[in-house]
Amino acid sequence: MSGWEVNPWLLRWNGLDVEQLRRTESVFALSNGHIGLRGTLDEGEPRGLPGTYLNGFYEAHALPYGESGYGYPEDGQTVVNVTDGKVIRLLVEDEPLDMRYGKAHEHARELDFRTGTLRRRTVWESPTGRRVTVRTERLVSLTQRAVAAILYEVEPEEDVQLVVQSDLLANEPVENDSDDPRVAAALEDPLVADFAHATGYRAILAHHARNSELRMAAAMDHELETDDGVRTEIRAEGDLARFTAAVDVPAGGRLRLVKYLGYGWSAQRSVPALRAQVEAALAGARQTGWDGLLAEQRRFLDEFWEAADVEVRGDDELQQAVRFALFHIMQAAVRGETRAIPGKGLTGPGYDGHAFWDTEMFVLPVLACTVPEAARDALRWRHSTLDKARERAAVLGQAGAAFPWRSINGAECSAYWPAGTAAFHVSGDVAHAVARYVSVTGDLAFEREHGAEILVETARLWASLGHHDQHGGFRIDGVTGPDEYSAVMDNNVYTNLLAQENLRNAAEAVERHPAVAERLEVTPAEVEGWRRAADGMLVPFDDLLGVHEQAEGFTSHAAWDFERVDPDEYPLMLNYPYFDLYRKQVVKQADLVLAMHVRGDAFTPEQKARNFAYYEARTVRDSSLSAGTQAVLAAEVGALQLAYDYLSEAAFTDLHDLHRNVHNGLHMASLAGAWTGLVAGFGGMRDHSGELAFAPRLPPGLQGFSFRLTYRGTRLAVEVAPDQATYRVLSGDGLDASHHGERFTVKPGEPVALSIPDPPQPPEVRQPHNRAPVRRTPPGNQG
Amino acid sequence: MSGWEVNPWLLRWNGLDVEQLRRTESVFALSNGHIGLRGTLDEGEPRGLPGTYLNGFYEAHALPYGESGYGYPEDGQTVVNVTDGKVIRLLVEDEPLDMRYGKAHEHARELDFRTGTLRRRTVWESPTGRRVTVRTERLVSLTQRAVAAILYEVEPEEDVQLVVQSDLLANEPVENDSDDPRVAAALEDPLVADFAHATGYRAILAHHARNSELRMAAAMDHELETDDGVRTEIRAEGDLARFTAAVDVPAGGRLRLVKYLGYGWSAQRSVPALRAQVEAALAGARQTGWDGLLAEQRRFLDEFWEAADVEVRGDDELQQAVRFALFHIMQAAVRGETRAIPGKGLTGPGYDGHAFWDTEMFVLPVLACTVPEAARDALRWRHSTLDKARERAAVLGQAGAAFPWRSINGAECSAYWPAGTAAFHVSGDVAHAVARYVSVTGDLAFEREHGAEILVETARLWASLGHHDQHGGFRIDGVTGPDEYSAVMDNNVYTNLLAQENLRNAAEAVERHPAVAERLEVTPAEVEGWRRAADGMLVPFDDLLGVHEQAEGFTSHAAWDFERVDPDEYPLMLNYPYFDLYRKQVVKQADLVLAMHVRGDAFTPEQKARNFAYYEARTVRDSSLSAGTQAVLAAEVGALQLAYDYLSEAAFTDLHDLHRNVHNGLHMASLAGAWTGLVAGFGGMRDHSGELAFAPRLPPGLQGFSFRLTYRGTRLAVEVAPDQATYRVLSGDGLDASHHGERFTVKPGEPVALSIPDPPQPPEVRQPHNRAPVRRTPPGNQG
Repeated sequence: MSGWEVNPWLLRWNGLDVEQLRRTESVFALSNGHIGLRGTLDEGEPRGLPGTYLNGFYEAHALPYGESGYGYPEDGQTVVNVTDGKVIRLLVEDEPLDMRYGKAHEHARELDFRTGTLRRRTVWESPTGRRVTVRTERLVSLTQRAVAAILYEVEPEEDVQLVVQSDLLANEPVENDSDDPRVAAALEDPLVADFAHATGYRAILAHHARNSELRMAAAMDHELETDDGVRTEIRAEGDLARFTAAVDVPAGGRLRLVKYLGYGWSAQRSVPALRAQVEAALAGARQTGWDGLLAEQRRFLDEFWEAADVEVRGDDELQQAVRFALFHIMQAAVRGETRAIPGKGLTGPGYDGHAFWDTEMFVLPVLACTVPEAARDALRWRHSTLDKARERAAVLGQAGAAFPWRSINGAECSAYWPAGTAAFHVSGDVAHAVARYVSVTGDLAFEREHGAEILVETARLWASLGHHDQHGGFRIDGVTGPDEYSAVMDNNVYTNLLAQENLRNAAEAVERHPAVAERLEVTPAEVEGWRRAADGMLVPFDDLLGVHEQAEGFTSHAAWDFERVDPDEYPLMLNYPYFDLYRKQVVKQADLVLAMHVRGDAFTPEQKARNFAYYEARTVRDSSLSAGTQAVLAAEVGALQLAYDYLSEAAFTDLHDLHRNVHNGLHMASLAGAWTGLVAGFGGMRDHSGELAFAPRLPPGLQGFSFRLTYRGTRLAVEVAPDQATYRVLSGDGLDASHHGERFTVKPGEPVALSIPDPPQPPEVRQPHNRAPVRRTPPGNQG
Repeated sequence: MSGWEVNPWLLRWNGLDVEQLRRTESVFALSNGHIGLRGTLDEGEPRGLPGTYLNGFYEAHALPYGESGYGYPEDGQTVVNVTDGKVIRLLVEDEPLDMRYGKAHEHARELDFRTGTLRRRTVWESPTGRRVTVRTERLVSLTQRAVAAILYEVEPEEDVQLVVQSDLLANEPVENDSDDPRVAAALEDPLVADFAHATGYRAILAHHARNSELRMAAAMDHELETDDGVRTEIRAEGDLARFTAAVDVPAGGRLRLVKYLGYGWSAQRSVPALRAQVEAALAGARQTGWDGLLAEQRRFLDEFWEAADVEVRGDDELQQAVRFALFHIMQAAVRGETRAIPGKGLTGPGYDGHAFWDTEMFVLPVLACTVPEAARDALRWRHSTLDKARERAAVLGQAGAAFPWRSINGAECSAYWPAGTAAFHVSGDVAHAVARYVSVTGDLAFEREHGAEILVETARLWASLGHHDQHGGFRIDGVTGPDEYSAVMDNNVYTNLLAQENLRNAAEAVERHPAVAERLEVTPAEVEGWRRAADGMLVPFDDLLGVHEQAEGFTSHAAWDFERVDPDEYPLMLNYPYFDLYRKQVVKQADLVLAMHVRGDAFTPEQKARNFAYYEARTVRDSSLSAGTQAVLAAEVGALQLAYDYLSEAAFTDLHDLHRNVHNGLHMASLAGAWTGLVAGFGGMRDHSGELAFAPRLPPGLQGFSFRLTYRGTRLAVEVAPDQATYRVLSGDGLDASHHGERFTVKPGEPVALSIPDPPQPPEVRQPHNRAPVRRTPPGNQG
C-alpha cells in the first residue's frame, strides 16, 4: 500500500516516514497557479526538498555544449526555490520541536479537496517529557492570488514556555544528487538580497535572481493569540526575516498564531513597487482574516467541484485518486493568469519547472471542460510568447511561429535538438488546444483576440516546414513526434495529422475573423496553400502489415529485443543509447495511439484496432504521458479491462510513485490522464470537428461513474451505469451530442437515458515482456 | 596570388606579413609523425599560433552536456602545445631582433621538399642602424624520431655584441578566439612541472598534463661556434630552461649555433626514465652532428621521392602543390609508429588534434602505394585501440568493435552523437583500409597479426547493427554516412556498401587465417551470417529518378534553396541549423560519390554518370574532404575539365587557404586528395577485388603527368601523355593490370605503351548556385 488512507475527499498520511518526506511534500503541495508551496513540515526539518515557487520566476544559466551548433539555445532557465515563508519553528522550554527526536504520540497530515487546505495534527513529547499538541492548517489562497496563510496552534499539557520563530528564509540549501537528465539542474544561492525591512509583526525581504535579474519580494504578517503575556521580536536582513514570540502557556491553554504571506515578482517593477505590491496583498489578507480566507477557499472549491466532479462507484481508491488529480490540476492552473502551466505544476523542481506540450494535449482538455478560464489563460500565455516563437522559427529558417519544447518564459531551453527543436508537433499541439478550447467553450472573443493569431502563425510554420513531393503528397520531414524513443523521422503520423488539422483550422479562423487576416497579412493564396497542404498531407501506412507507420520507415526497423531487458533497466533511456532506441521499433509513449485519440476522425475502427494491437506490443510506457491515452484507445477498441488497468496506472502514477520521481513534483499530464481515461476512455467523449460524442462503457468490476462538463454554456452531467447512460442538463440551454454514434438532444429538466450496446470484439493485445500494466481489480466500495 | 613562389621542389614566402603568420606557420610545419613543430619564427615573436606537438600526447577534459544521455562519452581529449624548443632569441647590442621593429632588408623562408628543412634568411637592421644577416635552418629528423635540430647563424656588418637566448618554454599562452566548433577548445597551462635540470650547454624540463597525467620531457643541447670569446650561462626551472651566450662578433665574423632537441612522452614511464630517454636522443643527435642529420634527411627523402614522386607537365603551380601535399602526408605519418595520423597531422591544434576516418579513406591509400610501412603502422594504431572499440560497441549494445568518430587515444571523444557515434561507417572505413593495404602490399603477415582481427570485429559490428527485413534485405538503420549534412538515416548507400565489403573480406580473411578464426571464436555459422548479410545488403535506388538514394528517403526530401544563400553563408552549418540541413537535399561532401569511387564495382557506368550529375547539383563542398573525390568521379564520367577544377581545389586547399582555417593546421585528407585526384582521377587507378586497373586521361590544358607506386613488390611508373600512357617497371618482378578495361602485363625492362581512347560523353553537370569550383586554366609551364 501507498501509505495513503482511502477517503473520497481527503488524502491523509498517518505517522512520519522521513524517507517518504520528499514524496509526500509533492503530494501535499498547495498552489493556486501563481504561488506553490511544497508540503514541508512547518518546522523546516526534517525535510525532503524544500520548495516555494512563483510561476514564471526563474534563474537563467548558460547551456553547455561539447560541440555547439547554429541555432542552439544559449540560455537555460530553472525554477528557483524562492524565499520560504512556510517555516514556523517551535521551542518547548528551549527544546526545538523536531520529529526525529522525542516521541510523536500522534502525527497525521491531510490534504482536504473541499477546504483546499493542508492540515496537520501532531502530539509530540519532547526528549525531556513535555507534551504538546500542534495543529496547523495551511492554504494558498485560490481567491487572493498573492496570498498564502498558515494557522499554527499549540496546546501544552503542562505549564511551559513556548517560543515560536516564524521565518522568511531565502537561499535555503537544496540538494540535488542525481545526474538523471530529468532531474532539475542544481542552482546554488540564486537570490541576491536587495532589501529587508521589519517592524512590529511584519517583515519583508526583496531579492533578485543573479542572472535572470527577475525581482521578487516576500512579506509576512502575524496575528498572535495567547492566554497570557507575550514578548515578541522581529528582524530582517539579507536572506532572513524572523518574527519571534515567547509565551508562557499554562496547561490546557493555547498559543494561536496566524501567519499571512504575500508574494510578488516582476521583470519590470522596482523594489519599492514590489514592496508595495506584497504589502497590499498582506493588507487584503489581514482584512479578510483567517476565517474569511478559509470561507472564500471553501466557496471557490464548492463551485469547482460543482463544475468538475467525477464520481466513481465500485473503486474507492480510484475515486480518491481522480479527485486528487482534479484538485491538483485545478491548483496548477487556476490563478496562473497568462503564465505557463509547468509539467509539474508548482509542486517541485522537476524538469527545471518548464512547461511542455503536455499542458496543451493533456491538461487543457480537462480544464477546457471544467475550468475554462484557466484553459484560456494558459493559451493566453502561449499567445504572449508569440514573438519569441516567431524569432525561433526565423532562426530555424522557417516562417510563422515555432513554440519551444521546454521553457518558462517562452524561449526554447532544450539543449538536445533531436528531442527538442525537432519536436515541431509542439506548435501543432498548441494550435490543437486553441481549436479545442474554442470548440468546447464557443469563446469566439478569445479566438479573435488571441487564438486566430496562434492558428495562423502555426499554419505558416507547417507550410514552410513541409513540401509537396513529386506525387503531390505533402511531406513533413526530419521531425520528432511524441514518442521520445524515435527522433528526426519523416512524416510522423501524429505530427502530420495535427498539422493537417492546424492548417484547416487556420483557414477557417481567418474566414471567421477577416480583420485578423488583414492584420496578419494573410492572403487568399496563402490560405489556398494551407488547404492544399492539408489535403495532400502524407500519412504513411504499411500495406503489408495493414497498420500505420508511426513515421515513414518505422515498421521496417528492427524489433527491440524486449526479452533481454531486465525489469530494472526501465526507463530504457537510462540504460540504452538513443541511437539504438531511435532506430528500432520500441515506443516510449503513445504517439500513433495518441494520434488515434485526438485525430480519431482520421482512422477507421478497423485501423484503430489493428494499430492499437501493433503499437501496444512495442510500447514500454517509460513516460508518464502514455497510460492515460492507452486507456482511451483500449476502451475504444473494446479492451475494457486493459483500459481500466491503464486508467489506474495514470491515476496512481503519483500516489503510488510509479516512476520513482514524484519527489521532484507531480506529473500534471498523468493526473490529467486519470480524468481523460474516465471521460474520453469509458465515457468515450470526443469532439472532432465540434461534434460532441459519447460512447460510454464500463469495465468489469466498476459499478458506474459520472462526470460533469460544460460545453458551450451548458453544464452536462453524464452518469454511466452498466446498461445505460443518463445525460442531464445541470444548467444552460441543453445541447446536441451523440451516444455510440446516435445523435440525441438533451434539454434542461429532460434527462436522456440511453442503453449501452455490447462492446466490439477487441483485437488480441499483448505488451512487451514485463511491461503489461498491473491488473486492476477494484478493492470494492468501502464508502 | 597566394604569396608563394612557384618552384617545383621548394615552397618559399618572401617578406614578412604578420597577418599571414598563423597561416604560414601551418604550411611551414615540420614533422616526422612523432614530433611536430609549427613554422614559427625562431625569435618567438611576432607569432601566430605557437605549436609543438607530440603525437598521442593530450590533455583530458570533461565533455559538457546541457542534457546528457546514456553512453555519451564523458571525457574529451585535446592536443597540447608542449614545451617549445624552437625559440632562439637574438639581441643585437641589447636590441632584440623583432621583425616588427627596425627594418628588414631581406626576409624569406622556404620549405625544401628534398632536404626536409625549413630555411630562413633575414637581413635586419636594428632601430639604431645595426645590420645583421640571420640564416637559420630547422629540421625534424626523419631518421631519429625523437630529435629536432636548428642551425642558427648570425653575421653582423660591423663589430657588435650579440646575445643569443635559446629556450625550452612550457605553457606558452595560446589564443583561441573562436567558438567555431571546428576550432580546438582552448586549454590554459595544461602542463605541470615535474623536473628541471641544466648544466653546461644542456637543459631538460619534464612535465605532465594536469588531467590526463601523461608525462613528457624536452631537452636541448647546443654547439656554439664563434670567432671570438664567449660567455655562456644556463638555467632551468619550472616552465623555462634558457641557454644564453654573449659573444662579441667582429664585422664579417659569424656566430654559429646548433641547437639539438630531444622529445619524449609516456603514460607509463617515470620522470627519470623519460629523462634518460631524451638525453639518449640528444646524445645520438650530437654524435650524428648537424651535417650528419642533414645528410640522413636528404637520403631519406631521396628514397621517398624515388618511390612517391608525381610529375605534372603544363601546370607548375599544381606540380608544386602536389609535391607539397606528398611531403606533408609523408611528414604526418612516416615515424608515427602505432600512433594515429591526426586530421591535421602535427601541423596545428585544429580538430583538437584528433584522428578521424579521413586517415583511412584518404591518407592511407596514398601511403599504401608510396610509404606502405607508414600505412601499416597507422593501421596498427587502430589495432592497438581494439579493446576500446570493443568496449564502445558493448556500451552501444552491439557486438564486435565500433571505432570512434574522433579520438587521440582510441576512446570516443565526440560530444554530438548524431554526427559521431552514429557514423558507424568509421569502422567500415578502417576495415576498408586494412583490406586495401593488404591488397596493395600483399602483406599477409600484417593481415594475420593485426588485419584479420580488425576485419572480424568490424564484421561482427555490422552483423549486430543490421537486420534482415521481411523481404530478406539486410538493413542498417539509423546511421550517419560521410555527408555531415545528413544524419541518422536508414540504409546509407556508402555505409551499406562498405559494410558489405567488410563482411565479405572478413569471411575471406578467416579462411586464410584459420588460427585467427579459432582465437576469435569465429564459427562457420557466423561466417555464413556475414555472407548472407552481405548478399542481402540493401542499396536504395529511386526508380523514378533513376539514381541511387544517398540514404533511404533522401530523394523525397525537399530541395535546398541555394538561390537564397549568400556566398558568405558558407559553410552552411555555421548559418543554418542541423535540423534543416539534415532533412533537405543538401550534401556537405561526397558521400554517394565517394561510394562510387571506393565501391565503383557496385555501380554501372550509366549509374555513375546519372548519380554524379544528381549529387553534383546538391553538393556544396563545405568540407575539405570532398573535392578530391569529386575529381575522381568527374574524371571517370568524362567531365575532364571539371575534374581538373576539383583536383586543383583539393591541391590548393591549404596553399590558397580556401577554407580560411589553415592557421589551425593543414588538411591532410585534402592534401591526399591532390594525389588521389591525379592518380585515381586522371590515372583512373582502382584496385577493386585486388584487380589493379588504370584508365588514364588528360584534361584539356595539361600536357602530361606521371606517378609512381609500389604494388605487391613491384615499383611501377606510369607516364600519361595526351594520346598514350606508358607503364614501366622500376624494380620488382612486374605485374598484371588493366588499361581502360584491357588486361596487360608489364615486366622489368619492357615498358608497355598503350593508347588512350576518347573519353565518354559526360552527363550534363551543374553545381549549386555559387558553388561551382574555380575554373582551372594552367598558368603554363614556367619551369
